[in-house]
Amino acid sequence: MLSQLHELFQRIDKSKIFQSFVIVVIIISALTVGAHTYSLHPTVEFFLHWMDIGITVFFLIELIIRYIASKGIKDFFSKGWNIFDLIVVVGSLYPAAGSSVFIARLLRIFRVLRLVSMVPELRLLVNSLLKAIPQMGYIALLMFVIFYIYAATGSMLFSEINPVLWGDVSISMLTLFRVATFEDWTDVMYETMAVYKLSWIYYLTFIFLTAFVFLNMMVGAILEVMSEEHRNAREEQTNINDMPATQGQINELKTQLSELKTLLSERKM
Amino acid sequence: MLSQLHELFQRIDKSKIFQSFVIVVIIISALTVGAHTYSLHPTVEFFLHWMDIGITVFFLIELIIRYIASKGIKDFFSKGWNIFDLIVVVGSLYPAAGSSVFIARLLRIFRVLRLVSMVPELRLLVNSLLKAIPQMGYIALLMFVIFYIYAATGSMLFSEINPVLWGDVSISMLTLFRVATFEDWTDVMYETMAVYKLSWIYYLTFIFLTAFVFLNMMVGAILEVMSEEHRNAREEQTNINDMPATQGQINELKTQLSELKTLLSERKM
Amino acid sequence: MLSQLHELFQRIDKSKIFQSFVIVVIIISALTVGAHTYSLHPTVEFFLHWMDIGITVFFLIELIIRYIASKGIKDFFSKGWNIFDLIVVVGSLYPAAGSSVFIARLLRIFRVLRLVSMVPELRLLVNSLLKAIPQMGYIALLMFVIFYIYAATGSMLFSEINPVLWGDVSISMLTLFRVATFEDWTDVMYETMAVYKLSWIYYLTFIFLTAFVFLNMMVGAILEVMSEEHRNAREEQTNINDMPATQGQINELKTQLSELKTLLSERKM
Amino acid sequence: MLSQLHELFQRIDKSKIFQSFVIVVIIISALTVGAHTYSLHPTVEFFLHWMDIGITVFFLIELIIRYIASKGIKDFFSKGWNIFDLIVVVGSLYPAAGSSVFIARLLRIFRVLRLVSMVPELRLLVNSLLKAIPQMGYIALLMFVIFYIYAATGSMLFSEINPVLWGDVSISMLTLFRVATFEDWTDVMYETMAVYKLSWIYYLTFIFLTAFVFLNMMVGAILEVMSEEHRNAREEQTNINDMPATQGQINELKTQLSELKTLLSERKM
Repeated sequence: MLSQLHELFQRIDKSKIFQSFVIVVIIISALTVGAHTYSLHPTVEFFLHWMDIGITVFFLIELIIRYIASKGIKDFFSKGWNIFDLIVVVGSLYPAAGSSVFIARLLRIFRVLRLVSMVPELRLLVNSLLKAIPQMGYIALLMFVIFYIYAATGSMLFSEINPVLWGDVSISMLTLFRVATFEDWTDVMYETMAVYKLSWIYYLTFIFLTAFVFLNMMVGAILEVMSEEHRNAREEQTNINDMPATQGQINELKTQLSELKTLLSERKM
Repeated sequence: MLSQLHELFQRIDKSKIFQSFVIVVIIISALTVGAHTYSLHPTVEFFLHWMDIGITVFFLIELIIRYIASKGIKDFFSKGWNIFDLIVVVGSLYPAAGSSVFIARLLRIFRVLRLVSMVPELRLLVNSLLKAIPQMGYIALLMFVIFYIYAATGSMLFSEINPVLWGDVSISMLTLFRVATFEDWTDVMYETMAVYKLSWIYYLTFIFLTAFVFLNMMVGAILEVMSEEHRNAREEQTNINDMPATQGQINELKTQLSELKTLLSERKM
Repeated sequence: MLSQLHELFQRIDKSKIFQSFVIVVIIISALTVGAHTYSLHPTVEFFLHWMDIGITVFFLIELIIRYIASKGIKDFFSKGWNIFDLIVVVGSLYPAAGSSVFIARLLRIFRVLRLVSMVPELRLLVNSLLKAIPQMGYIALLMFVIFYIYAATGSMLFSEINPVLWGDVSISMLTLFRVATFEDWTDVMYETMAVYKLSWIYYLTFIFLTAFVFLNMMVGAILEVMSEEHRNAREEQTNINDMPATQGQINELKTQLSELKTLLSERKM
Repeated sequence: MLSQLHELFQRIDKSKIFQSFVIVVIIISALTVGAHTYSLHPTVEFFLHWMDIGITVFFLIELIIRYIASKGIKDFFSKGWNIFDLIVVVGSLYPAAGSSVFIARLLRIFRVLRLVSMVPELRLLVNSLLKAIPQMGYIALLMFVIFYIYAATGSMLFSEINPVLWGDVSISMLTLFRVATFEDWTDVMYETMAVYKLSWIYYLTFIFLTAFVFLNMMVGAILEVMSEEHRNAREEQTNINDMPATQGQINELKTQLSELKTLLSERKM
């Protein structure tokens, strides 16, 4: 009887209708989260409260169905997206009442992310984005080193000019990030140029360095993905008979032909 | 006689002179739309009014010519650009007088778009742009999810600090779009940092996420177009005789040669 | 004797030392132009005046040398860079005295551009940039159409809110260019949103359209250059013997082999 | 005995544990530099002072170990990163006391850069960035020419409108760099447009020129790296037997086959 239940739940879990329904519930859940940011009529508020409980219960049931449909604990937890869904659903069990309503709502917002785990195309997209992270790790480290050196220098030189912007290393890094995004960076520069006339060198070298490293990062990312595509394209040509003929093969043919020739010549004599 | 008319109109429709004349009229139509935004002398205004009627009539005639030149209703409406032209022309029939002069002028502005439907190079360009839309659909959806989560969190945390920027989810999304374009984003951040000291984490993670997803979108778009180009290039090599020799073919040659060898060897004995 | 002069001047024109000297004079000429923007001592001013005359005369002599070194008028004017140099040098003959000193200085600034015509690497770079212009022409036209439609709509809707930004079509296009560069675009938007609550749609669609078209322009430009590189690479493989073997050739080999086989088989009988 | 020491130090220098320890010390050194920007308790200050001495001594010892581990002066100085480390370490020997504490701290900041010389992945990254510099040299020169011409023109035209922004050539170049980063560029433009109504042409042509050149620079950089990748990929195929068969080889086969044929035909007779 249990295996029948297992089979039934598996069919439910994989059915298009059930998956579409889950997506609809996720979208409704997202809308209720958004609705809370407007000032609402008490009856609407009351209705939203009960809908929230309904959605929480539905997500729990959906997760239980998926667990029973899986081949056991190991199989269930081997998929990263299942763990992700479990955390989101358990997190939203936090009671949305009393003084903790704020945290509860914050946790409910992350239910929107379940859209990513339900729509296969979004899942693919996020997976490919996650794959791109390590390749950018060392460039991020290099960027951090550049930011840190400039921030330490900046807070040493400019902390007395404007402590709000250059008070210590951490606040200086935030100011430098602002400069890197070109956000009113000339205001920051003109202020320090009033004291140190040559401080434009500080800003221009920083902008050139970050822009240069960023440009190379972008080029690198494009190339990385492209070379991977090439590799995949090559692997598609699994059938060795469809690959281009090599010079080695032609040379083998040549030796065979010359053997034939000698055979014929020998007989001629 | 009707078929003679059909043939005549077809010749008119396809003639370079007629097409150039239509383009000239479109440009004049665009200029009159622009002229209305300046304060004009009544006589010029009067002249523009009559020119507008003339242009409307001309566009109607041009459309009728093109309809007669086509092979019937089906053929005419099978081309998307014909439908586009029809809507624009019919829309500009709205009378440009009385209280509705505002809407009439708005509709006349879109006559400038007929330039796209008349110049083949622009038509090609727009077609290729339209083709690029679906491939960006899921990335747009992912971006929307990121924006929505941050907007809901933002309006929950900051709505009391500045209701103009963070009042509800929709206004928060607009504020976040502003942050994503780096438009005075530090002003927005400094305001919330006065209350929540750590709110820079909110802005920096948001900027990194959107920049990162956008970068990958760009790389993806470049790759998509490139792989298509490759496919087209491969399809150009339709003649199988011009394609590179495969290892499979070489192997066939080898077996033929070894057969020859055995033939010769047998005879030797 | 004239041919000896021709040969001598040709040798001078092509000598590395002469070319380096011309470049040095161009740089000095650029510095004097820059020096005029500072408030200078009368004796320095006097010195700069005589140096300017010296530079002008030197450029004239250099041009005459190059003309004599060429094979005649046709040969001289067949090179675009010669015409460019001639215009710049003749333009700087304008007397830098009296009331016209302003225009004279403006014309002298363009002598800096002679650096481009003298350094071969810069000449190559500019030539390749000029080649990229036509391919971007139609995209620029499409951008202009988008800007024009939005500018006409904008000046119709918003001209009464802020005539400085939306007064007429031309000033609206400038405002839209500002929006496209994200320069304080929210200030522009918030102003019109106070009257028309939904005017954010106008700005967001505009930003998405221009960003989208621009992105595609960039991708297109990259592809265009890349496909050209490929073409050049293919043309480098001029020697047909180095090109990859085709399936057609293999088939020829096969028929030859089968002919051999039939020859042998016939004799066997 | 000396050779034993040489061998021992070589083993220490190459051991993972030692290298990791050096990296940890570098990070601690970076943190102490950052800590100085905060206002600290005297005892912490005292502790930091002694730690700084400890770090300096450790870096000296590490450098001596690396020197002894090397095969002599020539071998040691043949590596650019060793020279880099030597300069940084010697620079931080500057005493951090008395009136010169400011310069001493500035020199100590650069010890963070030793992270780059210690982590092989960062070293690789920086090497590849340095390789990209020369290829961008001529484009930078071209950009400088554009900036210089516009700056000279700008300071001639606008110096009386706003001497702070357009006073002389150098300050004008800074203003133009600001315009190129779109930083409040409309404020600069509106100010000059109040006097010269057509000065928007100056700004728009400048923006288009710099954006256009920059775009081409980016495309060029991408292509440069890509063509290098292709070259590397080709070089990997060192084994000539794995390269695609050429048409020349096929032709050789053909002549051999026709020789065979003639041999057979001759004997037939």
